[in-house]
Amino acid sequence: MSDLMTLRPIGQVERDADAVWLSIDEPYRPALAELDRFSHMLVLWWVHGHDTEESRAITQTELPYAPGETAGVFACRAEYRPNPIALTTCKVLDVDMDAGRVGVAAIDAYAGSPVIDIKPYIGVVDRVRDIRVPDWYDGWPEWMPDEGIGLYED
Amino acid sequence: MSDLMTLRPIGQVERDADAVWLSIDEPYRPALAELDRFSHMLVLWWVHGHDTEESRAITQTELPYAPGETAGVFACRAEYRPNPIALTTCKVLDVDMDAGRVGVAAIDAYAGSPVIDIKPYIGVVDRVRDIRVPDWYDGWPEWMPDEGIGLYED
Repeated sequence: MSDLMTLRPIGQVERDADAVWLSIDEPYRPALAELDRFSHMLVLWWVHGHDTEESRAITQTELPYAPGETAGVFACRAEYRPNPIALTTCKVLDVDMDAGRVGVAAIDAYAGSPVIDIKPYIGVVDRVRDIRVPDWYDGWPEWMPDEGIGLYED
Repeated sequence: MSDLMTLRPIGQVERDADAVWLSIDEPYRPALAELDRFSHMLVLWWVHGHDTEESRAITQTELPYAPGETAGVFACRAEYRPNPIALTTCKVLDVDMDAGRVGVAAIDAYAGSPVIDIKPYIGVVDRVRDIRVPDWYDGWPEWMPDEGIGLYED
């Protein structure tokens, strides 16, 4: 086993005023077959703005939503982490295999972010009925909102 | 933005007769702070046995659990995919930051599999109340079993 693991983009996130979608490169479009039969998918994307030695060396962070709390990057969803892979569960709107276009309701990725994998969201492996989280999430929704998770507007 | 994206292992999966755990390399152990306050985590790991040009070129597969059905690799959880990253939701048993040991109830990874990221499982971003999946999952559990998802025994 080599220590070097390399990723290749399979496409990228695109946006316009009305929509957000994944644009999948031609060689990978056959891999979209049957994805439209799932309501949701897990999108792994690369946070290229944080692919720097400085960002990748950060191990702990103050939580912007929990003043005074510091957590390890493996205990939060910060975009800076040793391997800057983000994971977003998205509602699948439509899949055009020929065009390589997968419409999503929302995703918290900027346009141009490389997509590295798509996995279907399946109850038996992805959905946990009873969870425990720290009290800094008190008052947050306990389920993904129907529209999904998008970018925050400034 | 470079097309080359590289991952570095943050640790590996280890097993013995009684337990399975993630062994996290020393530089990354501070990133485990507060992880023990979550009941579940998402573990991204590298399927190194499928890091070959041949495996990475597979775009569709017959589904072993659905005779006669073929799906794209982005519509199933096959370990062969363009970027062989697997994602397993695991129940956190215990976290020893100093030793870099994270006990898990189960994970479907062989010993020695490189771990590339850990993220906490959070309701608002990871848990979807209403999902639709293809009918080949009829009869499967709709929620992750309490013990989690481990390796199948032969």
